[in-house]
Amino acid sequence: MRLKQLVKFATVVAGGCGTLMYAAKSSKLNATLGSNSNTAYAASKELSNKWDSDWDKRDGENGKASRNIILIRHGQYNLAGNDDHERCLTELGKEQAIRTGMRLKELGLNKKITHFVVSTMTRAQETGDLIYKQLGNDAIPVENTDLIREGAPVEPDPPIDTWNPERKTFFVDGARIETGFRSFIHRANPEQEFDSTEVIVCHGNVIRYFVCRALQLPPEAWLRLSLRHCSITWLSIRPNGRVSVKCLGDSGHLPHDKLTFE
Amino acid sequence: MRLKQLVKFATVVAGGCGTLMYAAKSSKLNATLGSNSNTAYAASKELSNKWDSDWDKRDGENGKASRNIILIRHGQYNLAGNDDHERCLTELGKEQAIRTGMRLKELGLNKKITHFVVSTMTRAQETGDLIYKQLGNDAIPVENTDLIREGAPVEPDPPIDTWNPERKTFFVDGARIETGFRSFIHRANPEQEFDSTEVIVCHGNVIRYFVCRALQLPPEAWLRLSLRHCSITWLSIRPNGRVSVKCLGDSGHLPHDKLTFE
Repeated sequence: MRLKQLVKFATVVAGGCGTLMYAAKSSKLNATLGSNSNTAYAASKELSNKWDSDWDKRDGENGKASRNIILIRHGQYNLAGNDDHERCLTELGKEQAIRTGMRLKELGLNKKITHFVVSTMTRAQETGDLIYKQLGNDAIPVENTDLIREGAPVEPDPPIDTWNPERKTFFVDGARIETGFRSFIHRANPEQEFDSTEVIVCHGNVIRYFVCRALQLPPEAWLRLSLRHCSITWLSIRPNGRVSVKCLGDSGHLPHDKLTFE
Repeated sequence: MRLKQLVKFATVVAGGCGTLMYAAKSSKLNATLGSNSNTAYAASKELSNKWDSDWDKRDGENGKASRNIILIRHGQYNLAGNDDHERCLTELGKEQAIRTGMRLKELGLNKKITHFVVSTMTRAQETGDLIYKQLGNDAIPVENTDLIREGAPVEPDPPIDTWNPERKTFFVDGARIETGFRSFIHRANPEQEFDSTEVIVCHGNVIRYFVCRALQLPPEAWLRLSLRHCSITWLSIRPNGRVSVKCLGDSGHLPHDKLTFE
């Protein structure tokens, strides 16, 4: 990837996995919607997880800015490749990336993006390069990182027969991807004066896991979400720690004949 | 809405609310990722909710078809209106609806859609009408229903200061919207031979609640999701009961200056 490279994150430090805290206490909703414990609804409420405002351990920092984080899956790539280098973008994948860069520019983000983070895998590097060129703004700093390379974040529930990595793969990848989450998905630093818009170009499993974690949804639900190639997923993180997803897998900028999942 | 009307659902039958079952037993992941109960991760796993394949009580029916359910939020409307009739689409809202119909047609869905369901609120009726006309296929049956009118599905967590309905509103709306969920979001009937594509034009709160329920995510998380006007949310329900979301709030078919949330 021939982009201005500010930082090269190559060292993966094993971190803890996940921070979702499921509060076991009864919700107020039991009283609201009826406390009949024979209903499935009441049962669900008993074990509901409450929102944790201190999910990123930044409560009390009194930051004032919001972060818009735009997660983009790489374009279609050569599935028959033997190694990462050979698993490069197809011609369609390149076109998907160019159109995605055009969409970001049409949204006026080329002047707003303050940080551009890219996975070091070939298909993400190529996608990031094509998007970056469309933005036409070489002042945007780029960070390449191994932390958000594709992997197996956590055993999905329900599982699928066609994708079944070894347990030790989840063990290693899970800590790395969680480290990526804690590195990139958190509220703004207190010294950040203005709202920021940041792009992260990476992979389907990583983005789906990040969304579940950021929204404090069960992380093992990540495989229930699907993401087309070069789709846009937009997280907003407010100074008070609230997180919302503005869109997930938005691919309306691609014509019908350019849409692919794999 | 001057569309072919097959069914008018006007009677709201109070149903139970929600079916999410949170299994309290430990997940296999504890063993996989370390069983140190002092970590937040282990705590989350203790109360994780397992996927319930019989969520729609259709296990054993041996259906063979999948359902694609396309949920569309209405277009921008006149927030200053005093009643539902006055809360009609703005000119921008009409344009959003027309462009959304054009996108569905560009996706080739005008020939595939088998059912077109619309909330009876004015802004949904107008949106549905404009989308339907763009499809150019009067053979698609239309169903208008009160079940998916806008409302307060369940108290959101975290709550927000600017939207705080009375608890009795959640009590009444929650049962109605859950009834809508159980009526429209389930796997295909066993006699359905081929995969179907169905459109539901309704409202932000309803769609967000449906997504949480369909994916078996905590329903009180619905407010963590945002949906632009005339955005497209696509659920896929397989014969085995598995559900995935193909996109949430996809609005890439709208130009930047036509994007609105409220």
